[in-house]
Amino acid sequence: MTFQQKLDKVIDKNNSLLCVGLDPDLDKLPEKIKTQNNPQFEFNKKIIDATTDLICAFKPNSAFYEARGEQGIHELKMTCDYLRKNYPEIPIILDFKRADIDSSNLGYINYAFDYIGADAVTLNPYVGKVGLQPFLDIPDKGLIIWCKSSNKGSEEFQNLLVDGKPLYQIIAKNVATDWNKLNNCLLVVGATYPTELAEIRQIAGDMTLLVPGIGAQGGTAERFVKAGINSQKKGLIINASRSIIFAENPKQEAEKLRDEINKFRI
Amino acid sequence: MTFQQKLDKVIDKNNSLLCVGLDPDLDKLPEKIKTQNNPQFEFNKKIIDATTDLICAFKPNSAFYEARGEQGIHELKMTCDYLRKNYPEIPIILDFKRADIDSSNLGYINYAFDYIGADAVTLNPYVGKVGLQPFLDIPDKGLIIWCKSSNKGSEEFQNLLVDGKPLYQIIAKNVATDWNKLNNCLLVVGATYPTELAEIRQIAGDMTLLVPGIGAQGGTAERFVKAGINSQKKGLIINASRSIIFAENPKQEAEKLRDEINKFRI
Repeated sequence: MTFQQKLDKVIDKNNSLLCVGLDPDLDKLPEKIKTQNNPQFEFNKKIIDATTDLICAFKPNSAFYEARGEQGIHELKMTCDYLRKNYPEIPIILDFKRADIDSSNLGYINYAFDYIGADAVTLNPYVGKVGLQPFLDIPDKGLIIWCKSSNKGSEEFQNLLVDGKPLYQIIAKNVATDWNKLNNCLLVVGATYPTELAEIRQIAGDMTLLVPGIGAQGGTAERFVKAGINSQKKGLIINASRSIIFAENPKQEAEKLRDEINKFRI
Repeated sequence: MTFQQKLDKVIDKNNSLLCVGLDPDLDKLPEKIKTQNNPQFEFNKKIIDATTDLICAFKPNSAFYEARGEQGIHELKMTCDYLRKNYPEIPIILDFKRADIDSSNLGYINYAFDYIGADAVTLNPYVGKVGLQPFLDIPDKGLIIWCKSSNKGSEEFQNLLVDGKPLYQIIAKNVATDWNKLNNCLLVVGATYPTELAEIRQIAGDMTLLVPGIGAQGGTAERFVKAGINSQKKGLIINASRSIIFAENPKQEAEKLRDEINKFRI
């Protein structure tokens, strides 16, 4: 089964486009979890168990685990092992935004798919298609290319005009028409840029878009869902991290957000 | 002491612009090393001891260690601990080409500087200056921004023309004139593109450039040294990995390459 098939199945089953970002910043964990042996894993386990029937994917960001060196990496692996064992139908997106040249990517491929066991990864496009080819050659994994990032100042290079078109549109076009030979590509577009999201939806056809930047970063559901939904009324993975995992009641928060998103899937 | 000061000191002491890439691909290690407890570390130790007085820096590429999960990360740390203990004057460049948005970069900062103990890191520019600000705010570390990568096909986005100028030139200019407020920025330019290297040298003033892509990837010393050297007859970190670490006699190979490079530092 490909990443896309796995994803679409869970979107339908859970009636959800919501993805929960498993970003357990150690400093922000409750004191009684922080003192346990594997605090990031223990924290994640609670979030996973509480939200797994409300979401379409989990997305751990590797940065929050690498911060702690080998112990963090170990707990990231524990988290994904736990997911695969208990909820094998839920896709795991490893958000690591890697890109190296040619064969050096093989190390990151081993890390993401063999060691962690992810179903999809995020990648940075700057090196170009030839550089990322070892990733693009993997048919069953999802390759989610950073196109328009959600941060302030993302326009510095991403919006530079090339023949009258902003760079992010050229990246979207190249990915949709040239990189996606195996139907394994997706794009990242920040919820904070709904106009750009609508443009990229036009360029990318029904391709699934990963949309971060809601909740703590401030995008509003009506705007980005309407801008990004595809002709099947899906095609979006909408990620929230801090606003759910650090909420008093993560399950309630996830349900609220899922339902809010679904209001505009029309 | 800043990264640049540490680097310049070793360049002078060892009369060398050569950097050795510690990329111990497990599959390529000799059988008798592969069976030891910490094979990547044991392999690196030999390379380090053999070449340390011939080089200006060591550059481990994180991908080759991450490939093995927590054990690889552990051996990368062992390698850097060994370097700091035995050769504290030699700068360590962690080649990990990261970039995330805003505070998510803090995880990578902890990984690179607190856990691994690197003196400098490579970064991907696509997210823009605001996204990378947490890195740029660190005065004593070297931040080496991917500008023109050495791989085939790097022109897909890097050479797109913006107002008549290729994107890599705009990145070089922004880094040199705006990102480099704390004098902690450097640029990556592939030896495989000597014309672009000469252009970037013009834009970046005396800024130090990290130049990969020699040896196994094929750049020749005369062209890239003449194209890249700065007004102080340094300003280059010239990296070779496979051609040295997998040579029959790494010390001899490093010496030959150092001397070949120095022939054109005139």
